[in-house]
Amino acid sequence: MSSARLHLALVHYPVLDKNGDTIAAAVTNLDLHDIARAARTYGVRGYHIVTPVTDQHEPVYSLLAHWVDGHGARYNPNRRQALELVELHADLADTVAKVEAAEGVRPRVVVTSARFTDSSVGFDALRDQLHQGSVILLVLGTGWGLAPECVALADDRLAPIEGPTDYNHLSVRSAAAIMLDRLLAPAG
Amino acid sequence: MSSARLHLALVHYPVLDKNGDTIAAAVTNLDLHDIARAARTYGVRGYHIVTPVTDQHEPVYSLLAHWVDGHGARYNPNRRQALELVELHADLADTVAKVEAAEGVRPRVVVTSARFTDSSVGFDALRDQLHQGSVILLVLGTGWGLAPECVALADDRLAPIEGPTDYNHLSVRSAAAIMLDRLLAPAG
Repeated sequence: MSSARLHLALVHYPVLDKNGDTIAAAVTNLDLHDIARAARTYGVRGYHIVTPVTDQHEPVYSLLAHWVDGHGARYNPNRRQALELVELHADLADTVAKVEAAEGVRPRVVVTSARFTDSSVGFDALRDQLHQGSVILLVLGTGWGLAPECVALADDRLAPIEGPTDYNHLSVRSAAAIMLDRLLAPAG
Repeated sequence: MSSARLHLALVHYPVLDKNGDTIAAAVTNLDLHDIARAARTYGVRGYHIVTPVTDQHEPVYSLLAHWVDGHGARYNPNRRQALELVELHADLADTVAKVEAAEGVRPRVVVTSARFTDSSVGFDALRDQLHQGSVILLVLGTGWGLAPECVALADDRLAPIEGPTDYNHLSVRSAAAIMLDRLLAPAG
Protein backbone atom coordinates (compact mmCIF):
# COMPACT_ATOMS: atom_id res chain seq x y z
CA MET A 1 0.00 0.00 0.00
CA SER A 2 1.18 3.49 -0.79
CA SER A 3 1.96 5.76 2.11
CA ALA A 4 0.89 8.84 0.13
CA ARG A 5 -2.11 10.59 1.65
CA LEU A 6 -3.95 11.46 -1.54
CA HIS A 7 -7.74 11.68 -1.86
CA LEU A 8 -9.56 12.25 -5.13
CA ALA A 9 -12.86 14.09 -5.62
CA LEU A 10 -15.00 13.96 -8.78
CA VAL A 11 -17.33 16.97 -8.77
CA HIS A 12 -20.71 16.81 -10.59
CA TYR A 13 -21.94 20.22 -9.35
CA PRO A 14 -21.08 22.99 -9.83
CA VAL A 15 -19.48 22.26 -13.20
CA LEU A 16 -19.67 23.93 -16.60
CA ASP A 17 -21.37 22.79 -19.77
CA LYS A 18 -20.21 23.35 -23.35
CA ASN A 19 -21.52 26.93 -23.27
CA GLY A 20 -19.94 27.85 -19.94
CA ASP A 21 -23.20 27.63 -17.98
CA THR A 22 -23.21 25.98 -14.56
CA ILE A 23 -24.93 22.59 -14.47
CA ALA A 24 -25.20 19.44 -12.39
CA ALA A 25 -23.73 16.58 -14.43
CA ALA A 26 -25.05 13.03 -14.05
CA VAL A 27 -23.08 10.48 -12.07
CA THR A 28 -22.10 7.67 -14.47
CA ASN A 29 -21.28 4.07 -13.68
CA LEU A 30 -18.22 4.30 -15.82
CA ASP A 31 -16.70 7.21 -13.92
CA LEU A 32 -17.26 5.23 -10.73
CA HIS A 33 -15.67 2.00 -12.01
CA ASP A 34 -12.78 3.32 -14.08
CA ILE A 35 -11.58 5.93 -11.62
CA ALA A 36 -12.07 3.65 -8.60
CA ARG A 37 -9.89 1.01 -10.28
CA ALA A 38 -7.17 3.58 -11.02
CA ALA A 39 -7.45 4.99 -7.49
CA ARG A 40 -7.05 1.52 -5.99
CA THR A 41 -4.08 0.75 -8.25
CA TYR A 42 -2.26 3.88 -7.09
CA GLY A 43 -3.11 3.62 -3.39
CA VAL A 44 -5.50 6.60 -3.22
CA ARG A 45 -7.08 6.86 0.27
CA GLY A 46 -10.61 7.81 -0.82
CA TYR A 47 -12.57 8.46 -4.04
CA HIS A 48 -15.20 11.08 -3.29
CA ILE A 49 -18.22 11.54 -5.57
CA VAL A 50 -19.61 15.06 -5.11
CA THR A 51 -23.20 15.88 -6.04
CA PRO A 52 -26.01 17.64 -4.18
CA VAL A 53 -28.57 15.87 -6.37
CA THR A 54 -29.78 13.31 -3.85
CA ASP A 55 -31.79 11.55 -6.59
CA GLN A 56 -28.39 10.42 -7.85
CA HIS A 57 -27.18 9.13 -4.50
CA GLU A 58 -29.59 6.19 -4.46
CA PRO A 59 -28.37 4.55 -7.71
CA VAL A 60 -24.79 4.98 -6.56
CA TYR A 61 -25.54 3.30 -3.25
CA SER A 62 -27.26 0.47 -5.17
CA LEU A 63 -24.23 0.01 -7.37
CA LEU A 64 -21.93 -0.01 -4.36
CA ALA A 65 -24.18 -2.48 -2.54
CA HIS A 66 -23.98 -4.83 -5.51
CA TRP A 67 -20.22 -4.68 -5.96
CA VAL A 68 -19.08 -4.21 -2.39
CA ASP A 69 -21.49 -6.45 -0.46
CA GLY A 70 -23.63 -8.30 -3.00
CA HIS A 71 -23.32 -10.72 -5.90
CA GLY A 72 -20.77 -8.52 -7.65
CA ALA A 73 -18.35 -8.80 -4.75
CA ARG A 74 -18.34 -12.57 -5.08
CA TYR A 75 -18.26 -12.54 -8.90
CA ASN A 76 -15.39 -10.06 -9.06
CA PRO A 77 -13.59 -9.38 -5.77
CA ASN A 78 -11.19 -7.02 -7.55
CA ARG A 79 -14.05 -4.68 -8.31
CA ARG A 80 -15.05 -4.69 -4.65
CA GLN A 81 -11.56 -3.63 -3.60
CA ALA A 82 -11.79 -0.66 -5.95
CA LEU A 83 -15.35 0.45 -5.21
CA GLU A 84 -14.78 0.26 -1.45
CA LEU A 85 -12.93 3.56 -1.91
CA VAL A 86 -16.08 5.39 -3.05
CA GLU A 87 -17.83 7.90 -0.78
CA LEU A 88 -20.70 10.25 -1.60
CA HIS A 89 -20.82 13.89 -0.52
CA ALA A 90 -23.19 16.76 -1.18
CA ASP A 91 -20.56 19.40 -1.87
CA LEU A 92 -16.86 20.12 -1.87
CA ALA A 93 -16.83 21.74 1.58
CA ASP A 94 -18.38 18.60 3.06
CA THR A 95 -15.78 16.50 1.23
CA VAL A 96 -12.94 18.53 2.72
CA ALA A 97 -14.46 18.10 6.19
CA LYS A 98 -14.72 14.31 5.75
CA VAL A 99 -11.12 14.03 4.55
CA GLU A 100 -9.99 16.15 7.51
CA ALA A 101 -11.89 13.84 9.88
CA ALA A 102 -10.29 10.75 8.32
CA GLU A 103 -6.73 12.07 8.12
CA GLY A 104 -6.60 14.24 11.24
CA VAL A 105 -5.47 17.27 9.27
CA ARG A 106 -7.16 19.57 6.78
CA PRO A 107 -6.16 18.56 3.23
CA ARG A 108 -4.65 20.95 0.76
CA VAL A 109 -7.30 21.30 -1.95
CA VAL A 110 -5.78 21.09 -5.44
CA VAL A 111 -8.11 21.71 -8.37
CA THR A 112 -7.52 20.60 -11.94
CA SER A 113 -8.46 21.87 -15.39
CA ALA A 114 -7.28 21.36 -18.96
CA ARG A 115 -7.54 25.13 -19.36
CA PHE A 116 -5.59 26.67 -16.48
CA THR A 117 -3.18 29.30 -17.74
CA ASP A 118 -2.38 30.39 -14.18
CA SER A 119 -1.55 27.10 -12.46
CA SER A 120 0.14 27.36 -9.07
CA VAL A 121 1.69 23.91 -8.71
CA GLY A 122 3.22 21.39 -11.12
CA PHE A 123 3.19 17.59 -11.03
CA ASP A 124 6.75 17.24 -9.70
CA ALA A 125 6.15 19.70 -6.85
CA LEU A 126 2.85 18.05 -5.88
CA ARG A 127 4.50 14.62 -6.02
CA ASP A 128 7.17 15.92 -3.64
CA GLN A 129 4.50 17.25 -1.26
CA LEU A 130 2.86 13.82 -1.20
CA HIS A 131 6.16 12.07 -0.54
CA GLN A 132 6.75 14.46 2.34
CA GLY A 133 3.44 13.41 3.93
CA SER A 134 1.09 16.22 2.94
CA VAL A 135 -2.60 15.35 2.81
CA ILE A 136 -3.91 16.35 -0.64
CA LEU A 137 -7.46 16.40 -2.02
CA LEU A 138 -7.19 16.38 -5.81
CA VAL A 139 -10.39 17.72 -7.40
CA LEU A 140 -11.57 16.92 -10.92
CA GLY A 141 -14.70 18.18 -12.65
CA THR A 142 -17.12 16.34 -14.91
CA GLY A 143 -18.90 18.06 -17.82
CA TRP A 144 -16.67 20.79 -19.25
CA GLY A 145 -14.83 21.30 -15.99
CA LEU A 146 -15.10 22.83 -12.52
CA ALA A 147 -17.13 26.02 -12.09
CA PRO A 148 -15.23 29.11 -10.89
CA GLU A 149 -16.61 28.81 -7.33
CA CYS A 150 -14.88 25.43 -6.99
CA VAL A 151 -11.63 26.83 -8.28
CA ALA A 152 -11.92 29.74 -5.83
CA LEU A 153 -12.09 27.30 -2.89
CA ALA A 154 -8.76 25.71 -3.74
CA ASP A 155 -5.32 26.09 -2.22
CA ASP A 156 -3.64 25.27 -5.54
CA ARG A 157 -4.38 24.91 -9.25
CA LEU A 158 -2.55 21.96 -10.82
CA ALA A 159 -0.81 22.47 -14.16
CA PRO A 160 -2.82 21.03 -17.08
CA ILE A 161 -1.78 17.71 -18.62
CA GLU A 162 -0.09 18.54 -21.89
CA GLY A 163 0.72 16.14 -24.66
CA PRO A 164 2.92 16.89 -27.66
CA THR A 165 -0.06 18.38 -29.58
CA ASP A 166 -2.28 21.41 -29.01
CA TYR A 167 -5.33 19.14 -28.51
CA ASN A 168 -6.32 18.82 -24.86
CA HIS A 169 -9.67 17.08 -24.63
CA LEU A 170 -8.97 14.03 -22.52
CA SER A 171 -11.91 12.35 -20.81
CA VAL A 172 -12.00 12.91 -17.05
CA ARG A 173 -11.29 9.16 -16.70
CA SER A 174 -8.12 9.40 -18.78
CA ALA A 175 -7.03 12.59 -17.03
CA ALA A 176 -7.49 11.00 -13.59
CA ALA A 177 -5.44 7.96 -14.59
CA ILE A 178 -2.59 10.07 -15.98
CA MET A 179 -2.56 12.35 -12.92
CA LEU A 180 -2.37 9.40 -10.52
CA ASP A 181 0.44 7.84 -12.53
CA ARG A 182 2.42 11.10 -12.56
CA LEU A 183 1.91 11.70 -8.83
CA LEU A 184 2.14 8.20 -7.40
CA ALA A 185 3.93 5.78 -9.74
CA PRO A 186 7.05 4.30 -8.12
CA ALA A 187 10.15 6.14 -9.28
CA GLY A 188 11.48 4.39 -12.40
CA MET B 1 1.86 17.51 -33.90
CA SER B 2 4.12 14.88 -32.45
CA SER B 3 6.73 13.41 -34.72
CA ALA B 4 6.56 10.03 -32.99
CA ARG B 5 5.33 7.25 -35.26
CA LEU B 6 3.12 5.39 -32.79
CA HIS B 7 -0.03 3.51 -33.73
CA LEU B 8 -2.38 1.94 -31.22
CA ALA B 9 -4.49 -1.20 -31.69
CA LEU B 10 -7.37 -2.29 -29.45
CA VAL B 11 -7.99 -6.01 -29.98
CA HIS B 12 -11.47 -7.50 -29.40
CA TYR B 13 -10.59 -10.98 -30.69
CA PRO B 14 -8.80 -13.13 -29.74
CA VAL B 15 -8.90 -12.02 -26.09
CA LEU B 16 -9.42 -13.88 -22.84
CA ASP B 17 -12.41 -13.87 -20.50
CA LYS B 18 -12.36 -14.14 -16.71
CA ASN B 19 -11.85 -17.92 -16.94
CA GLY B 20 -9.03 -17.77 -19.48
CA ASP B 21 -11.19 -18.85 -22.41
CA THR B 22 -10.81 -17.12 -25.77
CA ILE B 23 -13.70 -14.84 -26.68
CA ALA B 24 -14.65 -11.98 -28.99
CA ALA B 25 -15.36 -8.93 -26.80
CA ALA B 26 -17.90 -6.32 -27.88
CA VAL B 27 -16.73 -3.01 -29.28
CA THR B 28 -17.95 -0.26 -26.93
CA ASN B 29 -18.59 3.40 -27.69
CA LEU B 30 -16.64 4.36 -24.63
CA ASP B 31 -13.47 2.59 -25.69
CA LEU B 32 -13.76 4.36 -29.03
CA HIS B 33 -14.28 7.84 -27.56
CA ASP B 34 -11.95 7.78 -24.55
CA ILE B 35 -9.00 6.17 -26.26
CA ALA B 36 -9.43 8.23 -29.46
CA ARG B 37 -9.32 11.43 -27.36
CA ALA B 38 -6.17 10.27 -25.56
CA ALA B 39 -4.61 9.18 -28.85
CA ARG B 40 -5.31 12.56 -30.43
CA THR B 41 -3.92 14.39 -27.38
CA TYR B 42 -0.64 12.49 -27.62
CA GLY B 43 -0.25 12.63 -31.40
CA VAL B 44 -0.86 8.94 -32.11
CA ARG B 45 -0.91 8.27 -35.90
CA GLY B 46 -3.80 5.80 -35.94
CA TYR B 47 -6.21 4.10 -33.53
CA HIS B 48 -7.00 0.64 -34.89
CA ILE B 49 -10.06 -1.29 -33.72
CA VAL B 50 -9.51 -5.00 -34.32
CA THR B 51 -12.45 -7.39 -34.57
CA PRO B 52 -13.39 -10.06 -37.09
CA VAL B 53 -17.04 -9.78 -36.03
CA THR B 54 -18.35 -7.83 -39.00
CA ASP B 55 -21.71 -7.35 -37.25
CA GLN B 56 -19.79 -4.96 -35.02
CA HIS B 57 -18.26 -3.01 -37.88
CA GLU B 58 -21.55 -1.42 -38.92
CA PRO B 59 -22.33 0.31 -35.59
CA VAL B 60 -18.77 1.61 -35.47
CA TYR B 61 -19.07 3.04 -38.97
CA SER B 62 -22.38 4.64 -37.95
CA LEU B 63 -20.78 6.22 -34.91
CA LEU B 64 -17.87 7.49 -36.98
CA ALA B 65 -20.24 8.85 -39.64
CA HIS B 66 -22.09 10.81 -36.94
CA TRP B 67 -19.03 12.30 -35.27
CA VAL B 68 -16.69 12.66 -38.24
CA ASP B 69 -19.07 13.76 -41.01
CA GLY B 70 -22.50 14.26 -39.46
CA HIS B 71 -24.27 16.32 -36.81
CA GLY B 72 -21.74 15.35 -34.16
CA ALA B 73 -18.90 16.88 -36.13
CA ARG B 74 -20.68 20.26 -36.10
CA TYR B 75 -21.84 19.94 -32.48
CA ASN B 76 -18.40 18.97 -31.20
CA PRO B 77 -15.52 19.43 -33.65
CA ASN B 78 -13.05 18.24 -31.00
CA ARG B 79 -14.65 14.83 -31.03
CA ARG B 80 -14.30 14.70 -34.82
CA GLN B 81 -10.57 15.38 -34.57
CA ALA B 82 -10.22 12.42 -32.19
CA LEU B 83 -12.45 9.92 -33.98
CA GLU B 84 -10.82 10.64 -37.34
CA LEU B 85 -7.98 8.47 -36.05
CA VAL B 86 -10.17 5.35 -35.86
CA GLU B 87 -9.77 2.53 -38.39
CA LEU B 88 -11.39 -0.91 -38.37
CA HIS B 89 -9.53 -4.12 -39.12
CA ALA B 90 -10.47 -7.80 -39.06
CA ASP B 91 -7.32 -9.05 -37.35
CA LEU B 92 -3.91 -8.04 -36.06
CA ALA B 93 -2.05 -9.22 -39.17
CA ASP B 94 -4.24 -6.96 -41.31
CA THR B 95 -3.60 -4.08 -38.91
CA VAL B 96 0.15 -4.54 -39.21
CA ALA B 97 -0.17 -4.54 -43.01
CA LYS B 98 -2.19 -1.31 -42.98
CA VAL B 99 0.29 0.43 -40.69
CA GLU B 100 3.13 -0.73 -42.93
CA ALA B 101 1.32 0.67 -45.96
CA ALA B 102 0.78 4.03 -44.20
CA GLU B 103 4.27 4.41 -42.75
CA GLY B 104 6.36 2.79 -45.47
CA VAL B 105 7.98 0.39 -43.02
CA ARG B 106 6.77 -2.59 -41.04
CA PRO B 107 5.98 -1.53 -37.45
CA ARG B 108 7.49 -3.20 -34.44
CA VAL B 109 4.54 -4.90 -32.74
CA VAL B 110 4.56 -4.32 -28.97
CA VAL B 111 1.93 -6.14 -26.94
CA THR B 112 0.75 -5.16 -23.46
CA SER B 113 -0.60 -6.98 -20.43
CA ALA B 114 -1.01 -6.29 -16.73
CA ARG B 115 0.30 -9.81 -16.13
CA PHE B 116 3.55 -10.09 -18.09
CA THR B 117 6.30 -11.47 -15.91
CA ASP B 118 8.63 -11.82 -18.91
CA SER B 119 8.44 -8.37 -20.49
CA SER B 120 11.08 -7.59 -23.10
CA VAL B 121 10.96 -3.78 -23.21
CA GLY B 122 10.34 -1.04 -20.63
CA PHE B 123 8.66 2.35 -21.03
CA ASP B 124 11.92 4.32 -21.14
CA ALA B 125 13.44 2.10 -23.81
CA LEU B 126 10.28 2.18 -25.93
CA ARG B 127 10.10 5.97 -25.55
CA ASP B 128 13.68 6.17 -26.80
CA GLN B 129 12.84 3.98 -29.81
CA LEU B 130 9.97 6.33 -30.69
CA HIS B 131 12.16 9.40 -30.35
CA GLN B 132 14.66 7.74 -32.69
CA GLY B 133 11.96 7.36 -35.34
CA SER B 134 10.91 3.73 -34.98
CA VAL B 135 7.40 2.86 -36.12
CA ILE B 136 5.62 1.12 -33.25
CA LEU B 137 2.22 -0.60 -33.12
CA LEU B 138 1.19 -0.75 -29.45
CA VAL B 139 -1.41 -3.50 -28.92
CA LEU B 140 -3.92 -3.58 -26.05
CA GLY B 141 -6.53 -6.23 -25.37
CA THR B 142 -10.12 -5.84 -24.18
CA GLY B 143 -11.79 -8.38 -21.88
CA TRP B 144 -9.21 -9.95 -19.59
CA GLY B 145 -6.37 -9.33 -22.03
CA LEU B 146 -4.77 -10.55 -25.24
CA ALA B 147 -4.91 -14.25 -26.06
CA PRO B 148 -1.56 -16.09 -26.33
CA GLU B 149 -1.67 -16.15 -30.15
CA CYS B 150 -1.62 -12.33 -30.17
CA VAL B 151 1.29 -12.26 -27.77
CA ALA B 152 3.13 -14.78 -29.94
CA LEU B 153 2.88 -12.44 -32.95
CA ALA B 154 4.68 -9.63 -31.18
CA ASP B 155 8.22 -8.32 -31.45
CA ASP B 156 8.16 -7.11 -27.84
CA ARG B 157 6.17 -7.41 -24.61
CA LEU B 158 5.88 -4.08 -22.77
CA ALA B 159 6.45 -4.04 -19.02
CA PRO B 160 3.18 -3.87 -17.03
CA ILE B 161 2.07 -0.57 -15.51
CA GLU B 162 2.77 -0.82 -11.81
CA GLY B 163 1.46 1.48 -9.13
CA PRO B 164 2.64 1.51 -5.52
CA THR B 165 0.17 -1.28 -4.58
CA ASP B 166 -0.15 -4.92 -5.63
CA TYR B 167 -3.52 -4.21 -7.27
CA ASN B 168 -3.30 -4.06 -11.07
CA HIS B 169 -6.79 -3.98 -12.52
CA LEU B 170 -6.84 -0.78 -14.53
CA SER B 171 -9.48 -0.43 -17.23
CA VAL B 172 -8.05 -0.67 -20.75
CA ARG B 173 -9.01 3.01 -21.14
CA SER B 174 -6.95 4.04 -18.11
CA ALA B 175 -4.05 1.82 -19.16
CA ALA B 176 -4.01 3.30 -22.66
CA ALA B 177 -3.97 6.86 -21.28
CA ILE B 178 -1.11 6.11 -18.88
CA MET B 179 0.93 4.33 -21.57
CA LEU B 180 0.58 7.23 -23.98
CA ASP B 181 1.58 9.71 -21.29
CA ARG B 182 4.65 7.68 -20.36
CA LEU B 183 5.72 7.21 -23.98
CA LEU B 184 4.85 10.55 -25.54
CA ALA B 185 4.49 13.32 -22.95
CA PRO B 186 6.98 16.14 -23.55
CA ALA B 187 10.00 15.79 -21.27
CA GLY B 188 9.23 17.67 -18.07
